[in-house]
Amino acid sequence: MAAVVTLARRITLSGALPCRMVSPHVPCPLLLVQAGECPMTPCPHTTPFGVLFPRSSPQVWSQAAWQPPGLLSTQRRAFSNNKILVELDTSSGVATMKFKSPPVNSLSLDFLTEFCISLEKLENDRACRGLIITSTIPRVFSSGLDIMEMCGKSTEHYAEFWRAVQEMWLRLYGSNMVTVAAVNGSSPAGGCLIALSCDYRIMAENPKYVIGLNEAQLGIVAPFWFKDTFVNAVGHRVAERSLQLGLLHSVPEAHQIGLVDEVVPEEKLQEKAVAVVAQWLALPDHARQLTKTMMRKAVLDHMLAHREEDIQNFVNFVSKDSIQKSLSMYMEMLKKKKG
Amino acid sequence: MAAVVTLARRITLSGALPCRMVSPHVPCPLLLVQAGECPMTPCPHTTPFGVLFPRSSPQVWSQAAWQPPGLLSTQRRAFSNNKILVELDTSSGVATMKFKSPPVNSLSLDFLTEFCISLEKLENDRACRGLIITSTIPRVFSSGLDIMEMCGKSTEHYAEFWRAVQEMWLRLYGSNMVTVAAVNGSSPAGGCLIALSCDYRIMAENPKYVIGLNEAQLGIVAPFWFKDTFVNAVGHRVAERSLQLGLLHSVPEAHQIGLVDEVVPEEKLQEKAVAVVAQWLALPDHARQLTKTMMRKAVLDHMLAHREEDIQNFVNFVSKDSIQKSLSMYMEMLKKKKG
Amino acid sequence: MAAVVTLARRITLSGALPCRMVSPHVPCPLLLVQAGECPMTPCPHTTPFGVLFPRSSPQVWSQAAWQPPGLLSTQRRAFSNNKILVELDTSSGVATMKFKSPPVNSLSLDFLTEFCISLEKLENDRACRGLIITSTIPRVFSSGLDIMEMCGKSTEHYAEFWRAVQEMWLRLYGSNMVTVAAVNGSSPAGGCLIALSCDYRIMAENPKYVIGLNEAQLGIVAPFWFKDTFVNAVGHRVAERSLQLGLLHSVPEAHQIGLVDEVVPEEKLQEKAVAVVAQWLALPDHARQLTKTMMRKAVLDHMLAHREEDIQNFVNFVSKDSIQKSLSMYMEMLKKKKG
Repeated sequence: MAAVVTLARRITLSGALPCRMVSPHVPCPLLLVQAGECPMTPCPHTTPFGVLFPRSSPQVWSQAAWQPPGLLSTQRRAFSNNKILVELDTSSGVATMKFKSPPVNSLSLDFLTEFCISLEKLENDRACRGLIITSTIPRVFSSGLDIMEMCGKSTEHYAEFWRAVQEMWLRLYGSNMVTVAAVNGSSPAGGCLIALSCDYRIMAENPKYVIGLNEAQLGIVAPFWFKDTFVNAVGHRVAERSLQLGLLHSVPEAHQIGLVDEVVPEEKLQEKAVAVVAQWLALPDHARQLTKTMMRKAVLDHMLAHREEDIQNFVNFVSKDSIQKSLSMYMEMLKKKKG
Repeated sequence: MAAVVTLARRITLSGALPCRMVSPHVPCPLLLVQAGECPMTPCPHTTPFGVLFPRSSPQVWSQAAWQPPGLLSTQRRAFSNNKILVELDTSSGVATMKFKSPPVNSLSLDFLTEFCISLEKLENDRACRGLIITSTIPRVFSSGLDIMEMCGKSTEHYAEFWRAVQEMWLRLYGSNMVTVAAVNGSSPAGGCLIALSCDYRIMAENPKYVIGLNEAQLGIVAPFWFKDTFVNAVGHRVAERSLQLGLLHSVPEAHQIGLVDEVVPEEKLQEKAVAVVAQWLALPDHARQLTKTMMRKAVLDHMLAHREEDIQNFVNFVSKDSIQKSLSMYMEMLKKKKG
Repeated sequence: MAAVVTLARRITLSGALPCRMVSPHVPCPLLLVQAGECPMTPCPHTTPFGVLFPRSSPQVWSQAAWQPPGLLSTQRRAFSNNKILVELDTSSGVATMKFKSPPVNSLSLDFLTEFCISLEKLENDRACRGLIITSTIPRVFSSGLDIMEMCGKSTEHYAEFWRAVQEMWLRLYGSNMVTVAAVNGSSPAGGCLIALSCDYRIMAENPKYVIGLNEAQLGIVAPFWFKDTFVNAVGHRVAERSLQLGLLHSVPEAHQIGLVDEVVPEEKLQEKAVAVVAQWLALPDHARQLTKTMMRKAVLDHMLAHREEDIQNFVNFVSKDSIQKSLSMYMEMLKKKKG
């Protein structure tokens, strides 16, 4: 049904990027502009900027992955990697990204790599203006960071993994697209971060679903940029209590504290997400994008300014014998649960 | 009914200003003080400070405009310019400023000039401690910035206009007076900013009235200080969504999100505003003023630090051919609507 | 019932402090750590840091005060100064601190000194992980700063007093313990600050109780760090209005604006406080503590950076003849009220 794109080789680049891609991170200082206007000379959108992935060339984008399958109308394009399925409706300009990595859509390095590449492709595709993120796995949106990536690996691996987590957030929180999380399952820790990084969060009514930044429950601490993203959504006091208790909120509670914007029956979730994206896309793109940048710039800039320290801190922490021991024990426990 | 004061010549001055006028912008660093106390040497309230308008001399203030008309009690003083009527009740110390510029109280350079001069006069008048802002135009509080001022004019004109918009906000958001917006009509964009810059917002119950920072709907972006003022009132998340969608909120919705503090039937609006001002005036002036400064200083200072860049950005933007073209088209559309 | 500890001589020290005591103020930069992990070299927790009180030596801690009285089980230890009774349940790790300074638990220099010493002892006691703060005085939690300390004293005394107020807040707002305020009476000004500095606030249902930062009502202004603590709890807009009006909120109102987290019947207050502490103590200490630091660090650091100026401002203010005169008049009025 969907062609498979070979994963781009993971490399770290530092170079000039096209305007559309980096503008959320290095925003146009002119806040009163209209679509297509960038009067700055030189355009700040071409400022050098360190990124994880190389820019995908248009050639790659238009390869096999983009041949419309026979069953789809010509208005639909799809591509799929191993862990994420992306469908773009070119008539509406809205892509849907479906996490499909059993058992629980955990954020492994491979998953994050595919996620970032998919985001980059869509960001660079003029036909795509909006994005809905959802899951094909029953009852789980995403379980968050994959603990396997933090256990028994090299320091180089830990650094690469953490950079990928950062990159995912930078791309999603700073995306120029309208982004809507259609949260159709539980969404702890890193899964909650993905939802928080979108423009709007709709969650399916289900008494079994929970969402929250529950890192403290595991004896770890959410990084400062998880916290900043959370505070921007729910305010300081709610975040202070929720983070310290590592709370996983029920759906009504998440709605009440503003962690999700709307709750609908599960069968209405997709439809509602489409309607919300359409509402946001009714605005002129450039004005909406610059407004978004104005709101999120401080938090994005703060992370970028401390990115390398943040990686170093993570690597130092996870490399410690005591941490390795407790992570191994935790994984043993998980294995026994399954067995 | 009210004498007319000739508009002061618009000039740009940079000089030492009396304490009362600038203290919100250059606040006394001593936060524990009582009325009349300023122990700092030299008093920081006399710090040089760039302003749009010269200080009105006491002579001007005490001229014809202030002769009590025969029909008014000696406790009432009134002055009126072309676009704004000001009445000061010297027994209560509360002035009422009524926008009376048909058809929609749009914020032209002349309107803003009169507004700033009136604010300055009241600020410098020891008999005046509180201010109610309302409209005499049915169904409209203020429609916001006048697009005519942004179209087909010189760059000098654009700069003068934008400086006047800034000045209005600096004076109102930083006013030492108790300021209450009695919002008796719709209040988009710049009109909403005026309400947001007061200490308290009361809106008339009317299903036709709307209020909000809807700049994004017009393809433009609210300046950062509009955004900061909005965030201070409604919080980051509500502001993020409302600004990106350029939402004009109904009265109940505006109340629910905290954009207005109170909703009353239109016939009770003036009475309620008077009661609220009285409640705030029951506090010792100096303690209340310094508390206000403490709350608003960061946002006022941030704008002052970027004032000239903000003007330059506006001028660059509005001078572009493409922007001029779309503004002309927009005005043509408005003319046809009326015709 | 409880042994009395002689008050430590009040002195000002600047020296290296043990990690547990200062970590909230000089937090570990590594946000992803587990209990006992501090991979930084040199450990930032030993950074020199100016404090009011010397560290209590273990000898003092284990003296007579800690001999279990015959009637108490061996799981209870108690110590009492003149103004505060402290009981530590070593089985649960939860201490209860009871203000017992008639008539209204006002925050005199002696009270603050005992408060800080008690906090320090508990902070350094590995058996203590949680703290409940409440009052033994009917209908009053704490009436706030003692005006007697600001009247007719030397400038040295004013400085010492203000440093003690600061120190109390630094220790409580930055405490590593789980702190719950069981507010069983009215709590204006400094009393409200104590509640705000805890992790959670439970207030007894009583139509006569009020709580708020009402400094403006007295013609003075809450210091910036009172304001910052308040904003972190209730948000900018609510704080702006409440502080300017010097509002004392009823219990339901305090709950509604988020100034208290929960309201219970007075007879359930202690039981509820114990349950809440237990909920917070279920989390791994170190993860919870670092999360708390992450949330409160900016506000604590801002005060520390301006601590000496803040003292100087207070001393300058309170030393003025006019202020001394109004404080004397205020105290005369209070005396007549009682007579």
